[in-house]
Amino acid sequence: MPELRKDPIVGRWVIVATERGKRPSEFLPNPVEVVDPSKDPFAEGNEHLTPSEVYAQRKPGSKPNGPGWQVRVVPNRFPALRIEGELDKEPCGIYDRMNAIGAHEVIIETPDPNLPLEQQPVDGIARVFEAYRVRMADLLRDQRFRYILIFKNHGRQAGATLPHPHSQLIATPVTPNHVKEKLEGATRYFAYKDRSIFEDILRQETREGLRLVYENDGFVAFCPFASRFPFEVTVMPRRQSPDYHAIQPEEMPFLADAMRVTLQKLSKALNQPQYNYIIHTGPVRRPRQGYWTTIDLDFRWHIEILPRLTLIAGFEVGSGFYINPTPPEEAAKYLREITV
Amino acid sequence: MPELRKDPIVGRWVIVATERGKRPSEFLPNPVEVVDPSKDPFAEGNEHLTPSEVYAQRKPGSKPNGPGWQVRVVPNRFPALRIEGELDKEPCGIYDRMNAIGAHEVIIETPDPNLPLEQQPVDGIARVFEAYRVRMADLLRDQRFRYILIFKNHGRQAGATLPHPHSQLIATPVTPNHVKEKLEGATRYFAYKDRSIFEDILRQETREGLRLVYENDGFVAFCPFASRFPFEVTVMPRRQSPDYHAIQPEEMPFLADAMRVTLQKLSKALNQPQYNYIIHTGPVRRPRQGYWTTIDLDFRWHIEILPRLTLIAGFEVGSGFYINPTPPEEAAKYLREITV
Repeated sequence: MPELRKDPIVGRWVIVATERGKRPSEFLPNPVEVVDPSKDPFAEGNEHLTPSEVYAQRKPGSKPNGPGWQVRVVPNRFPALRIEGELDKEPCGIYDRMNAIGAHEVIIETPDPNLPLEQQPVDGIARVFEAYRVRMADLLRDQRFRYILIFKNHGRQAGATLPHPHSQLIATPVTPNHVKEKLEGATRYFAYKDRSIFEDILRQETREGLRLVYENDGFVAFCPFASRFPFEVTVMPRRQSPDYHAIQPEEMPFLADAMRVTLQKLSKALNQPQYNYIIHTGPVRRPRQGYWTTIDLDFRWHIEILPRLTLIAGFEVGSGFYINPTPPEEAAKYLREITV
Repeated sequence: MPELRKDPIVGRWVIVATERGKRPSEFLPNPVEVVDPSKDPFAEGNEHLTPSEVYAQRKPGSKPNGPGWQVRVVPNRFPALRIEGELDKEPCGIYDRMNAIGAHEVIIETPDPNLPLEQQPVDGIARVFEAYRVRMADLLRDQRFRYILIFKNHGRQAGATLPHPHSQLIATPVTPNHVKEKLEGATRYFAYKDRSIFEDILRQETREGLRLVYENDGFVAFCPFASRFPFEVTVMPRRQSPDYHAIQPEEMPFLADAMRVTLQKLSKALNQPQYNYIIHTGPVRRPRQGYWTTIDLDFRWHIEILPRLTLIAGFEVGSGFYINPTPPEEAAKYLREITV
């Protein structure tokens, strides 16, 4: 009998097939594109093809916007939001608009166009996540921004327009709806139980082990109970903190290790699937009243990894109702058994 | 300057490119599949290839599950939910689950596998929408169900597994999250303004005409102010009613005409695009207190048409944050100018 499962944070119901789970081999393979570095704007030596860098980790003695970097952050050449100007919030009859002021940056994860993130050593992955942290910490000082969204689109079907491994940062003057829903759900649970829902989830997942994918001393990776997508994985820190940018230096190697192992397992199990990941973190401006006053206790930053194995039908986007053909328990079992 | 626009009902912010709107010719064409009726389980004469029909409009004298029908409704052969059994709601530690009890039906819109819905005459389209109404009115008597979702996936990328024109009905024991958000948004607006937001939207769209696509005496088709997708269109009745199944016989020809004209315009402008549509209607069981007590005044059923011209990145699903490359004003202007 298929099940209806409720996401404990946002209350979303998902239909989970429990009888015949779709096995990894039943999903379509993802053709891997091999990139010619000479035509790749993100490759080392082509720094002049991107806007000037806003951050880089470089070898001693190398110069900005030249070769010699390991990670490089540049403004998006085709930004969805513009960095300069005023918000000019105004009505349009009954509607509301403002200028799309914000930052849109690209984090180039490696000079090598053909080196996927999970194939980097732990310290290479840590460099990428440190670049996220530095850019976030810098941008949150801009009073116009409410939220900083960091995400990765890997593969064309996942929204990547260039195959060179990269992530994106979008700083916006509004908080995305799904973030708000998570924050509100976390606050509601805390008000009712006087416990953090993230702590309760972590306790159940590590004790039961049914949906566990990997854990180390700093982080736990598991397939969420009400996964919308086959092989969806959440990576969550053991330490309570609402803000990604407040990650401690000693946590970074554990995060890099957890991401490396999880992404390698997904890559091996699903034959290098296309995927997205998103860092869910607290908003950078917080009202002093109402919702979110307990955010330091009730909300915990985390990463959602969404492999793109099934089509996202507009129907699902329109209704918020998902059908997941692979039970998360089965997905987690596969991923646990994969050795990397 | 790109804009941030807020959906007036659910409060979702969307980035709308206003400078260089993506023109219809810039989107990828959709290859049209021609179906061989002999291999098509939905074709006339192949009725034995589907489960027994639960409803059909037939020529006088024709027999159930044989030829002679215009519209035919059958249970889905691979249902996401099962019709028989108890819900057995129960906890799983901190989580909640229940059996996925529900109905999953297929509305076969025509015996002709190669006749798209919009190419049918008005009375053919009215027959399809009448089939929706009849099935909805029948299923809502089942006390286990809370919501009846009617939608159409047209084209493979839009989630259709068979090209023969068909729609789907899913009756569920829970209300989808996006429906709840709309209901709550509508109730909030009504509590604040003592007016229906749907009436206010309709007034502004018909007066300004900027985003208007088509109108007749019963229905208005327009591109919503905060469209998530290029060429998104909403079709809304002029008469206040929360429930699709309460549509009046005299409204039906106007609905069929509005859908026919809108879908023909989209088909001509965008070269037969893949699309989804979803009927947003009130839930079938309503609490007597709290939210939704004003539903008869504040919520109005409507249809969302979502052409599938851009990829839905997991990022967008994960964050709820959409970037729309075509301003709805430009999309509406194109669609108004297309003659059908």
